[in-house]
Amino acid sequence: MSSTSDVQQATPQPLDASKLIYTLADSPRDVPDPATSCAGDTTICTDHMILATWSATTGWSAPKLKPYGPLSIMPAASCLHYATECFEGLKAYRGSDGKLRVFRMEHNAARLQMSCNRISLPTVDTDQLIQLVHALLAVDGPKWLPEDQAGEFLYIRPTVIGTQSNLGVQAPRSAMFYIIMGYVARVDAVPGGMKLLTSPDNMVRSWVGGFGHAKVGANYGPSVIASQEASREGFHQILWLYGEDGECTEAGGSNFFVVWERKGDKQKELVTAPLDDRLILDGVTRRSCLELVRERLGGELEITERKFTINEVIEAAAEGRLLESFSVGTMWFVTPVSHIRHRGYDIKIPMGEQGEMGEVTGKLKGWLGDIMYGGVEHSWATVVSEKRA
Amino acid sequence: MSSTSDVQQATPQPLDASKLIYTLADSPRDVPDPATSCAGDTTICTDHMILATWSATTGWSAPKLKPYGPLSIMPAASCLHYATECFEGLKAYRGSDGKLRVFRMEHNAARLQMSCNRISLPTVDTDQLIQLVHALLAVDGPKWLPEDQAGEFLYIRPTVIGTQSNLGVQAPRSAMFYIIMGYVARVDAVPGGMKLLTSPDNMVRSWVGGFGHAKVGANYGPSVIASQEASREGFHQILWLYGEDGECTEAGGSNFFVVWERKGDKQKELVTAPLDDRLILDGVTRRSCLELVRERLGGELEITERKFTINEVIEAAAEGRLLESFSVGTMWFVTPVSHIRHRGYDIKIPMGEQGEMGEVTGKLKGWLGDIMYGGVEHSWATVVSEKRA
Repeated sequence: MSSTSDVQQATPQPLDASKLIYTLADSPRDVPDPATSCAGDTTICTDHMILATWSATTGWSAPKLKPYGPLSIMPAASCLHYATECFEGLKAYRGSDGKLRVFRMEHNAARLQMSCNRISLPTVDTDQLIQLVHALLAVDGPKWLPEDQAGEFLYIRPTVIGTQSNLGVQAPRSAMFYIIMGYVARVDAVPGGMKLLTSPDNMVRSWVGGFGHAKVGANYGPSVIASQEASREGFHQILWLYGEDGECTEAGGSNFFVVWERKGDKQKELVTAPLDDRLILDGVTRRSCLELVRERLGGELEITERKFTINEVIEAAAEGRLLESFSVGTMWFVTPVSHIRHRGYDIKIPMGEQGEMGEVTGKLKGWLGDIMYGGVEHSWATVVSEKRA
Repeated sequence: MSSTSDVQQATPQPLDASKLIYTLADSPRDVPDPATSCAGDTTICTDHMILATWSATTGWSAPKLKPYGPLSIMPAASCLHYATECFEGLKAYRGSDGKLRVFRMEHNAARLQMSCNRISLPTVDTDQLIQLVHALLAVDGPKWLPEDQAGEFLYIRPTVIGTQSNLGVQAPRSAMFYIIMGYVARVDAVPGGMKLLTSPDNMVRSWVGGFGHAKVGANYGPSVIASQEASREGFHQILWLYGEDGECTEAGGSNFFVVWERKGDKQKELVTAPLDDRLILDGVTRRSCLELVRERLGGELEITERKFTINEVIEAAAEGRLLESFSVGTMWFVTPVSHIRHRGYDIKIPMGEQGEMGEVTGKLKGWLGDIMYGGVEHSWATVVSEKRA
């Protein structure tokens, strides 16, 4: 029997949300009006953040809820040199009933564990993570996403970084876990639909044997150079192709879908890239779209996770078989894609009878929105208690 | 004509080493004895660092030389989420004549510019970088690498990180450049030579269209998981293979060479992976080895930069044609490789007549050491003035 009160701790301590120490902000800040909340160069975060530190010998510190502010990081810290960092992205949704909800957070928590393992950081227990997100929302939710703002959301960013101050390339022996929340722009309402530019021949986002499936920093920074070029040419995102055949993988940081009439038997089919080669992120929205479509449209629509190439998309468009395309993710929600440019060739994608989005795209967006914002009761949405525990 | 003293600056300011502001440490620390300088979990750095901040609108701040200590970084900073970070690694060498030298720093400076561009960070002017490294060495060199420590070195780490506090994936509009110096262990004297384990089938370090040629953080953290496995099995580094044929690319973070008798004509040949597909780092030590061998051993040794596979190495070993292998880099200097394990098959590599290293390995190590430590005069080594400018 070991006692944790002994001076010498025999085993590293687990992360324990029940030990959360509250230090509330002395001077809470004003909440910006919605029009300007995402207008500046800086992401506006809420009054508080949650933070816990880890060392290989002592394990996790008691987590702290404290005022949002700068971190003190040594110049030789692993995260600043070797990208020992990973994160999650999720949202809290203010419902039409005034309640605050989170969406399938257990999948974000599980994915963060996988990402931590891939990048050699300590894992964060899934249950503790979920409790800590709830704790932060309980404190900052009512003020930063008030009851009367139905249909709005806050973005939540759990993050793990390696902090060991050592220039050797190695698994960090100290780390930090923190959760911040703030405003990010709503980007799913793109007038005329999203325009994608396929990745240039000399740029590959992820590769078999790499880490494209993990939400590690190393997937993001290196992609910016291509995204900037796309933006300069008037496109919203890069459609990342893979391999000599140009398999369609991800659109920016979101999962990419097409709906077409299948060549040959003309079966209406929803297609998206598979997870098994670990090139793409196992998105929570992707997963949810597939599950909803299987459940609710399975009779009329075949659902296929397989490799598909840009030339198949071009061929379907040329033959009038391409019906819809959309991109999904926590940031992009469900956004219709209307246009893809590949090596100077333009693919136009139908946008449905009202010209806003196709039928499947619209149904998915509606169904998911109903779940997230409490229009329907559903097991995927969890109401957040906004009273401090 | 614009005046920089105007309140409204028309153009972002360039980095200007001549504006360096000195704030010396009030309580300089003790220099550890050489035996313990690399023994702890933390890299021991010198008393000072150099730091400059950048913003897209105002450009570079005046650089500061100030006490080494923690950085204040916002939790939403780009470098902590998206690996917008890159660095250089070089050494200052204390010569047998008591002088301090740096080695071909202009190549590190040029590579840092390339890395900054690849990871969407502002570039650091090469001349200014070189002047700032000299300035830091002038202040900390005499104390941290005293004149009587001939044959010792300090490690220098110029670093650029994205600091914009914004959760969007984009080119950072603010950044920080800093230079730190400290002790890293001497690793080139491996008793019996270095042992390499080839990368597992499901792990690829870099890929065509990626960023393996740039010194960005994203190349390092994701490789740790494989290196740890190699270490657990008693190997020093991973030999990273690429593609279905198993091309030999890098050994850990260093460039990999073999010397063999060529199949067929038995010509003695030095072979290393090429730069053109951008899989590997354009190492300063790699470049220097190739140049020295071309100049001094060109008559007896053919020098070839080409793709070569692990099966070619296995075949050469089996036929008694494999003569030497070594790994080179700033960290590893020139280290003989004695053993490679590939999928359970062991390749033994000759270690020369004295059993320490082969002839070419030994010559290169001697020649480079002579240049770095002032045993000979050479244009590649630059003496550092240790008087503050």
